[in-house]
Amino acid sequence: MEGTTGAPAADDSGAAPVRSVRLRAPYLLFLGEEASPLKAKTAFGLRDWAPERCLAQLRMPGCGVDLGLPDLAPRAAAQAGARALVIGVTPPGGRIQTGWTAVLREAVEAGLDIVSGLHTPLESVPGLAEAARAAGVALVDVRRPPDDLPRATGRRRSGRRVLAVGTDCALGKKYTALALARAMRGAGVDADFRATGQTGVMIAGRGIAIDAVVADFIAGAAECIAPAAAPEHWDVIEGQGSLFHPAYAGVTLGLLHGAQADALVLCHDPVRRHLVSWPDYPVRGLRDAAGPYVEAARLTNPGARIAAVSLNTSALAEADALQALDDAARTLGVPAFDPLRTPADRVVASILS
Amino acid sequence: MEGTTGAPAADDSGAAPVRSVRLRAPYLLFLGEEASPLKAKTAFGLRDWAPERCLAQLRMPGCGVDLGLPDLAPRAAAQAGARALVIGVTPPGGRIQTGWTAVLREAVEAGLDIVSGLHTPLESVPGLAEAARAAGVALVDVRRPPDDLPRATGRRRSGRRVLAVGTDCALGKKYTALALARAMRGAGVDADFRATGQTGVMIAGRGIAIDAVVADFIAGAAECIAPAAAPEHWDVIEGQGSLFHPAYAGVTLGLLHGAQADALVLCHDPVRRHLVSWPDYPVRGLRDAAGPYVEAARLTNPGARIAAVSLNTSALAEADALQALDDAARTLGVPAFDPLRTPADRVVASILS
Repeated sequence: MEGTTGAPAADDSGAAPVRSVRLRAPYLLFLGEEASPLKAKTAFGLRDWAPERCLAQLRMPGCGVDLGLPDLAPRAAAQAGARALVIGVTPPGGRIQTGWTAVLREAVEAGLDIVSGLHTPLESVPGLAEAARAAGVALVDVRRPPDDLPRATGRRRSGRRVLAVGTDCALGKKYTALALARAMRGAGVDADFRATGQTGVMIAGRGIAIDAVVADFIAGAAECIAPAAAPEHWDVIEGQGSLFHPAYAGVTLGLLHGAQADALVLCHDPVRRHLVSWPDYPVRGLRDAAGPYVEAARLTNPGARIAAVSLNTSALAEADALQALDDAARTLGVPAFDPLRTPADRVVASILS
Repeated sequence: MEGTTGAPAADDSGAAPVRSVRLRAPYLLFLGEEASPLKAKTAFGLRDWAPERCLAQLRMPGCGVDLGLPDLAPRAAAQAGARALVIGVTPPGGRIQTGWTAVLREAVEAGLDIVSGLHTPLESVPGLAEAARAAGVALVDVRRPPDDLPRATGRRRSGRRVLAVGTDCALGKKYTALALARAMRGAGVDADFRATGQTGVMIAGRGIAIDAVVADFIAGAAECIAPAAAPEHWDVIEGQGSLFHPAYAGVTLGLLHGAQADALVLCHDPVRRHLVSWPDYPVRGLRDAAGPYVEAARLTNPGARIAAVSLNTSALAEADALQALDDAARTLGVPAFDPLRTPADRVVASILS
């Protein structure tokens, strides 16, 4: 922040400017020649969480994945109303395959944007950038942040917010936020899922992969992801990383500060003993994790509280899972649920209370 | 960190790879036509803190600043041994002035690298990139991080480290680290200043402007800035931001985790009531600030402790300053100093103890 301690951008409304990646829908979900559904998590996530954005699937010879959507070629999909081809699979190395070039160019020439969360920049696919310019469509690498992100203002903004936080990465924060947004809307609450990771951005059709922004702008990006809204509106914000992660805690804290969350949902895996891929780091228990999250959140929202626990009980049998949920609820004195296993109604009530 | 929870890069030594911006010395300090010494803080900082790296100054007509160094034109400076021209002034808007183009090209043609911390990319100066390629010299924007920074491993590494932390930005963390490194070397300790901001990088001749790295790599960059070293070696690491800053705390926490500091020196301004440019945010007192810093630091170094306080007493008369230092020392039970006003010996002893 050297030389950058000047005032944040003036903004009479008190709200951060709305800057975000935005995707056109509906999507043609591209599955390539992927043989394994395990490598098509993005496509299945889109089908399950944004069905209204998913028009059709495009499978190449040898593809063993089926989303149960109509199979359409790019031109037919465009004629049926598709606006973007979304790469829904993750091949080895997370790279765009050379065998895809022809079909991606065909999609561009049919008037479809191309949306990718893979590491290979779409601009690097031979001829694709030129074809996109000629066709007037966009090549969207969803991990690339918007330009000109602002620094966080720290000013309180209207609307209410709940953020999923966790004791580690990869234990269900995105799924928790999606399930809560759906349950809150089902309960008649004006709620939106707010995406902070690449798959979430594809599901929501907007958002920012916050771990890809420049460090000075983490909290500012979070203010853009969940901007000022109507007083009774709820943003349900996808969390990232963990405050107790030796590599990613900076991202988590910046997101926590920029989110200005009223309510936190603490996500935890009761059988995980060490951080995934960081075996030197034990996973904190719920009680040891809750305090630091609330203390940090109160810097930008003095009313912040832990409203619920979300447990990933996928490794447990039913009886053990229910016992773990009871234990978690008793430990923190808030409702606990597993979005894959138990209803969200008591958690929603706790968030709204 | 989505899709990035895989193991950090394998590294048998347990040390992070040494990745850093590196600058060739000695420098020709470029002062342009700057009229005010206040706009030449970078040049004065280099003269005061890295005299062995400063060979000469280059002043254009109208320049009202004098560093007391010989005035040399680029070719004469190169013949005298200079390796780089360093832009030592900050003109309005932090931009490279169009009137500088000719002299910057002259420096490149004389075989000097160009080093800049301004916002204008050196590559954008007309003809400069081509001239640099032809002359085989480097254009170094010190705010641009090295490529391929690793994610933090979180693995303990050899050597000892002290990090300057603070209750706000812009209250003397860089100056504190520089003064401590100098005092420790004066006491016969094998110590190096480690830079995390652009001016610090110019002074040290290496380092990373950590607020400019991608969010996922903040702690990883800190591991590179202060890599594994001899067991008795001390890195004195420049701090950034504040754990209690609504815009920058993510940078501060990632740096704190990656630094794996044994000792923290808490920097504070006893008369500052609110964060600079963030008037909604009061400055924390020393006692309220110390606990969260130590708790966060202990994630990656369980032995982390507050070793001293550094007070910026520039706004106080001598007697009030000494009283403020006494109060601060009593509050935290550690030595307190003002590097501009009082000796560092007791602080150094506390860090080494």
